[in-house]
Amino acid sequence: MVDYISEIDQYLKRLFPITRSLTGQGNRESLQILQEILPLKILEYFSGQKVYDWTVPREWSIKDAHIKNSRGEKIVDFKKNNLAVVSYSTAIRQKMKFSEIIKHLHYLKDLPQAIPYRTSYYNNDWGFCLSFNDFKKYFSQDQEYEVFIDAGFKDGSLTIGELLIQGQNPQEYLISTYICHPSLANDNLSGAILTAFLGKELLKRKLNFSYRIIFVPETIGAITYCANNQEAMRKINAGFVITCVGGQGKFSYKQSYNPDCFLNKFIERIFQDNNIEFITYPFDINGSDERQFSSIGFRINTVSICKDKYYEYPYYHTSLDNLGFVSPQAINVSLNLYLDIIEQVDKIDNNFTFINTKPNCEAMLSNLGCYPVLGGRLNPNQNNKSKKTQRDIISWLLFLSDGKTCLADISSKIDISISDLYEVAIFLEKKGILKKVKYER
Amino acid sequence: MVDYISEIDQYLKRLFPITRSLTGQGNRESLQILQEILPLKILEYFSGQKVYDWTVPREWSIKDAHIKNSRGEKIVDFKKNNLAVVSYSTAIRQKMKFSEIIKHLHYLKDLPQAIPYRTSYYNNDWGFCLSFNDFKKYFSQDQEYEVFIDAGFKDGSLTIGELLIQGQNPQEYLISTYICHPSLANDNLSGAILTAFLGKELLKRKLNFSYRIIFVPETIGAITYCANNQEAMRKINAGFVITCVGGQGKFSYKQSYNPDCFLNKFIERIFQDNNIEFITYPFDINGSDERQFSSIGFRINTVSICKDKYYEYPYYHTSLDNLGFVSPQAINVSLNLYLDIIEQVDKIDNNFTFINTKPNCEAMLSNLGCYPVLGGRLNPNQNNKSKKTQRDIISWLLFLSDGKTCLADISSKIDISISDLYEVAIFLEKKGILKKVKYER
Amino acid sequence: MVDYISEIDQYLKRLFPITRSLTGQGNRESLQILQEILPLKILEYFSGQKVYDWTVPREWSIKDAHIKNSRGEKIVDFKKNNLAVVSYSTAIRQKMKFSEIIKHLHYLKDLPQAIPYRTSYYNNDWGFCLSFNDFKKYFSQDQEYEVFIDAGFKDGSLTIGELLIQGQNPQEYLISTYICHPSLANDNLSGAILTAFLGKELLKRKLNFSYRIIFVPETIGAITYCANNQEAMRKINAGFVITCVGGQGKFSYKQSYNPDCFLNKFIERIFQDNNIEFITYPFDINGSDERQFSSIGFRINTVSICKDKYYEYPYYHTSLDNLGFVSPQAINVSLNLYLDIIEQVDKIDNNFTFINTKPNCEAMLSNLGCYPVLGGRLNPNQNNKSKKTQRDIISWLLFLSDGKTCLADISSKIDISISDLYEVAIFLEKKGILKKVKYER
Repeated sequence: MVDYISEIDQYLKRLFPITRSLTGQGNRESLQILQEILPLKILEYFSGQKVYDWTVPREWSIKDAHIKNSRGEKIVDFKKNNLAVVSYSTAIRQKMKFSEIIKHLHYLKDLPQAIPYRTSYYNNDWGFCLSFNDFKKYFSQDQEYEVFIDAGFKDGSLTIGELLIQGQNPQEYLISTYICHPSLANDNLSGAILTAFLGKELLKRKLNFSYRIIFVPETIGAITYCANNQEAMRKINAGFVITCVGGQGKFSYKQSYNPDCFLNKFIERIFQDNNIEFITYPFDINGSDERQFSSIGFRINTVSICKDKYYEYPYYHTSLDNLGFVSPQAINVSLNLYLDIIEQVDKIDNNFTFINTKPNCEAMLSNLGCYPVLGGRLNPNQNNKSKKTQRDIISWLLFLSDGKTCLADISSKIDISISDLYEVAIFLEKKGILKKVKYER
Repeated sequence: MVDYISEIDQYLKRLFPITRSLTGQGNRESLQILQEILPLKILEYFSGQKVYDWTVPREWSIKDAHIKNSRGEKIVDFKKNNLAVVSYSTAIRQKMKFSEIIKHLHYLKDLPQAIPYRTSYYNNDWGFCLSFNDFKKYFSQDQEYEVFIDAGFKDGSLTIGELLIQGQNPQEYLISTYICHPSLANDNLSGAILTAFLGKELLKRKLNFSYRIIFVPETIGAITYCANNQEAMRKINAGFVITCVGGQGKFSYKQSYNPDCFLNKFIERIFQDNNIEFITYPFDINGSDERQFSSIGFRINTVSICKDKYYEYPYYHTSLDNLGFVSPQAINVSLNLYLDIIEQVDKIDNNFTFINTKPNCEAMLSNLGCYPVLGGRLNPNQNNKSKKTQRDIISWLLFLSDGKTCLADISSKIDISISDLYEVAIFLEKKGILKKVKYER
Repeated sequence: MVDYISEIDQYLKRLFPITRSLTGQGNRESLQILQEILPLKILEYFSGQKVYDWTVPREWSIKDAHIKNSRGEKIVDFKKNNLAVVSYSTAIRQKMKFSEIIKHLHYLKDLPQAIPYRTSYYNNDWGFCLSFNDFKKYFSQDQEYEVFIDAGFKDGSLTIGELLIQGQNPQEYLISTYICHPSLANDNLSGAILTAFLGKELLKRKLNFSYRIIFVPETIGAITYCANNQEAMRKINAGFVITCVGGQGKFSYKQSYNPDCFLNKFIERIFQDNNIEFITYPFDINGSDERQFSSIGFRINTVSICKDKYYEYPYYHTSLDNLGFVSPQAINVSLNLYLDIIEQVDKIDNNFTFINTKPNCEAMLSNLGCYPVLGGRLNPNQNNKSKKTQRDIISWLLFLSDGKTCLADISSKIDISISDLYEVAIFLEKKGILKKVKYER
C-alpha cells in the first residue's frame, strides 16, 4: 500500500484554483505542477489542425469578468470563482436589461447554493453561472446590469502531457485522464493527481508491459491525441480513464464496452479482495474519453474506477464539487486500487498461456515438495468452501492448462485472484510441469 | 390508429352463421364476402391432388341434419347450430337404440351448456355434438332415435384466398389465416376478418417488402398451398398466422420456432410500447399452420398475436365461442398491433445494415445541427433512466454501426424501438455519416 | 428392477473384514471373491514400473501390529480393526515415551468414538489410528509404550481386476471402481460390490456398445491402468467412477468436467423419473479416479452417482463407515439407477442421428396408425403440462430431425427421456419417416 495522502493534499490545494479549459495557460501551468511528480513530456497541437471530424480550437484566455448592478457593485465575479464564466465565453462589455441578460445566466433551482459549471466550446456565445440564491438576491425584472468579460481567442495550441513508460514487452496499456475542468475537485482534479502518482509508482517498478499515460482536455484532447498517434493507439491492449476518484460516496466502476473483457473481471475481484462494496455501471455511450478510445476505429476496452462517478453525485459539475467534497485519503485508496489492478494486468501476458507438460493423469505432486505427505484427510474444501488451498490451485491449474485456455479464464473459472494464480503458475513453470505457450485466441 | 370497429362488427354478424369446413360452398361464400374488403384471388385445388404426404380431400356438403326422438321431435338440429354435426360426417338416415347412438354423440361434462366442435376429416364416420344439458334432457337408455344427416362428398376442390402485395423489394413476408371453422367467433372468424382489414391497410401504404396474404383451411389448406407454391414459400422472410384475436382475456403471443428471431423481439417491444400486459407462449409443435410453415422444408419463423389464444380459454372449440365472446373493439386493437409490427418489419431490410463513415473517435455532432450547443449538462439519463434522448440514439448508433451488426440487434441492445432507431439511421445516412452496407450474417 | 439385496448383504459381510491397500494379498483375495459374481481377469503390474509421473509401489504386507502400555496390555490392536495401522506403515518394534509416540497417533477430537483412516503411501513412516476416547483413556504424558508393527515391503505387483464386455459397437464406456480401502463400507466396499453386480447384469444383455470394467486401487491403480492401456483409454466415450453408493443420506451425483455432457443430463432425468431427490455436485479437482480419467491426456467425461458422497458424510474415512452405515437395500437402489443410466447410454449412438424423410409440412400421422382419428380435441398439453403424449413426441421428433441435431439434444430440448424418445424414433424409422444418418458434431 502506497501512502501519498499528505502530498495529494498539497497538490489538491495548489491545483484547485487554476482556471483550466480546453486550451490555454491554466492547462500548461497545471501540467508544469504535475511534472514535479512525473516527467511528463508536454505536447502542443496548433489551433486549426484537423483531427478527424474536429478541429483543434483556438486558444482561449480570460483575465477578468463580472456583472455589476446599477449601483456599480459586482454581483457576479470571475475572480471569486472561475466557474462564474461559461468556459470559452466571448469578450463583452455592455449594459443590458434583465430581459436580455437572463438569456445568459445559468443557475440550478434544485441546488440553490451551487454555481453550475457550463461551457460553450463550439458556439460563439458568452454566459455567467451563479447560484440560484444569488440570482434571486441580485437580479430582478426592472434592473439594468453591466456585463464585462475580458477574454480572447488566438491561434495557439492545445496542450497535452504524455509519459511513455517502457516495459519488457512493447505492447501498451493506456492510462488517460483529463485536465480541462477548472475549480472542480472530484471531476477531475482528483483523477489528474491520482494519475500522476500512479505514473510515479509505475516508474519505480520493473514492468512487463509498457504504459502510455496522457493528460488531455476531455473529448477534443483525446481526439487530437488519437489522430496524432493513430497507429500506436490502434495497438493498445486495453485502457483506463481515470476520473472522479476522491468523493464521499461508494466506489464503482464503469465497465468497458465488451462486458466480458478481463479488465472488468479483474476490477470486480480486486473490489472483492479488498472487501469494498461497489456499484457496477455498464458501458454507456455517455461518459468520458472511453467514448473516443472505444470508438470503431480503436475499440480499446477502457474502464474507470470511480468514487463518486460523474453524473451520479448531486454536486457533479457545480461549485460544491470542491476541496470539501474530496479527500486525499479517498484518492489514496483509489490509487492503491489502480495499482493493484495494473499489477495484475501487468503480470499476465494474454498472448501466452501455459501447457501441462505431464498431461496424462495427475502429476505426482509430492515430487514438488508441496503435496501433503499424509493422505486420507478430510475434504479439503470442507472448512472454507470458497477458498482454495495451494494444492487445489495447483491441481486445477494443471487440469486446465491445455494450452488453449488463458490465465484470465482460468482465474475466473476457479474463482481465485490472478496474482495467486500467476504465482502458482510460475512456481510450476520453474518445476518444469508447466510450459509457456503462445495463446491463440 | 385505424378504426374499423363498426365494419368489423357487421362482418362478424354476416360471416358467423356460415357453415365452413375444409372445403365447400361455405368457404367460397365467406371468401366472396371478404372480397368486399380485399381483392382476393380465389384459388381452387382439385380433390385428389397429392400434396406431399397428403391428398386434397373430396368436397363435403351438408343440407340438413337432426336427431329425432321417438315422438318425432327434433332434439338435435343442425339448422339451429351448425356445430351440431361433426364436420365431414357421412350421410345417414336410420333408427337406432341409445346403446348405438351414444357412440356418435359428443358433449362436454365440464361445460354442460356448450356444444363442442368436432371434425372427422380423415375417418369415414358421422356424429352429433350437443350440450351435456341437452344430452341429459333428451337421451336415456331405453329410448330409440332417428338419425338423419343429408350430407355428401364429391370430387370438387379446396378453396384458398390469396393476395400478393408487391413492395419495392420482392422479398416476401407471409400472412396466413384459416377459414375452415364454422360458427366459432374467436377461433377463427376474428382472425379472418382482421387479416382482411390488415390487407386493406397494407394496400394503402408504400411498402418496402412484399406480402403474401392467404386464407386457407387449416392444415390441409396450408399444406396444399405450400406444395403448390414451394419455391416462393421457401424464400419467405418470416410469417404471421393470424388467429384468435378478439377474445375477452389477456393478449399473448406465440413465439416462432427460433426464440431469438427478431419478430419475437419486435412483438414484445410493441406490447411494451403500448403498455399492454401479455403472455408469452414459447413455440410448441401443437398449434396452427406455423406447424407447416416452420417444418424442416420451409423453416419460416412464424408468430401469432392472440387474445385469447386457442387452447387457453374455456370456450375454445365450443358454441360459447360466439359473437358474445368476441368484440369488434378487441379485434380492432389486435389489428393495430399487427399493423405496428408489420410497419416495423417493413422498415428494416435485414440484408443491409449501416457502417459509420467516420469510425475514428466521435463525429462532431454539432455539425449535424442536432447536438446540444451548450455542453456540461447533467447526466442525460438522469431523469428518464429507461428512455434515450435523440442524441443518445445517435451516439449509440454511430458507436455500434461497424457494418457487422444489424439494426434489429442494435435495437434490442440499446432497448429502443426499431422505428425510432430506423428514423435516426436514415437521418444519419442523409448526413453522410452512416452508409448502407450488405449485412453478412 | 433387479433385486440382489440378499447377495449384496452376504458379500458385504465377507469382504468387509479384509485388509486392502494399494497392493497386496487383501486386494487379490477381494477380487477372487468378486470373481464369483463376475468373470474378472486379474492383471498384475510389477513394482517399479514407471507409469507416467509415478512408479508402481512395492507390495506391502502386514501380519500384526499393536501398542502395549507399560503393563503389557494391548491398548491399540490391528487384529481388532485394520484401520488401527496407517496403511503402508514401515515395520517397527520399539519402546518409546509419550512425547515420541504422540507424533504417530491419529484420532479425531470431533468424532471421539471413531478410528480415522490414514495412509502413508509415499513417505516412509508408520502410525496408529485410534478413537479419541481410547486416546484419552490409554495415553498420558508420563507413560512409556511398546510399539509393534510386523509389516514389510517387497517387489511384488499391483493388482487390477478387468472385464471387457463386447457390444455390437467396439466403442467403449468405462466403468471404474476402487478396491484399496480396508474396512470401510460405503467408501468403497459398496462401490466394488455394486460394480460386480452391474457387470453381471450387463453380461446378460444384448448391448450396442462395449464396456470396460475395472477394479483398481485408487489413484496409482487408475494411473497404472491408463499408462498400460493408453490408446484404448483415449478412445473411451465416457465413464463412471462407482463409489459410495450405500449410505443413509440423500442421493447425489458428481458431474463430469464438462457440465454440458449428455451423461449429466441423463442422470438428472433418471433421478427425476424415479422421483428421487438429489444433490448435484459440480466437477471438482478433488475426488476419485475421474481426476485421472478426465486429465488432459484423456479428457473422459466421468460421473459418479453417490449415496452419501465421499467428503460429505461425517463418518467418511472412519471406522463408523461400517456395515451399520450402509444397507444392501441402498446399494440395490443405486445398482438399478446405474442400470437405468447405462441402458440409456447404450441405446444412443451419438455418431448417428435421424433425418425426416418428409421434410415438407407435417407427415400425415394417421397413416401411421397412431394419430387420434377424431380431431378438434382440447389442448393436448392441458391436463399434463409437463408430460408429452406419444403424438407430441412424434411431432417434435419429426420437427427437429433435420439430421443436424442429435437425439440427446432433442431429448433435453423437449424434456423427455432418451428411452421414450428412442423408442419413438425407432418406430418412425421402421415406418420409413425417419432415416438414420451420420451425425457431424
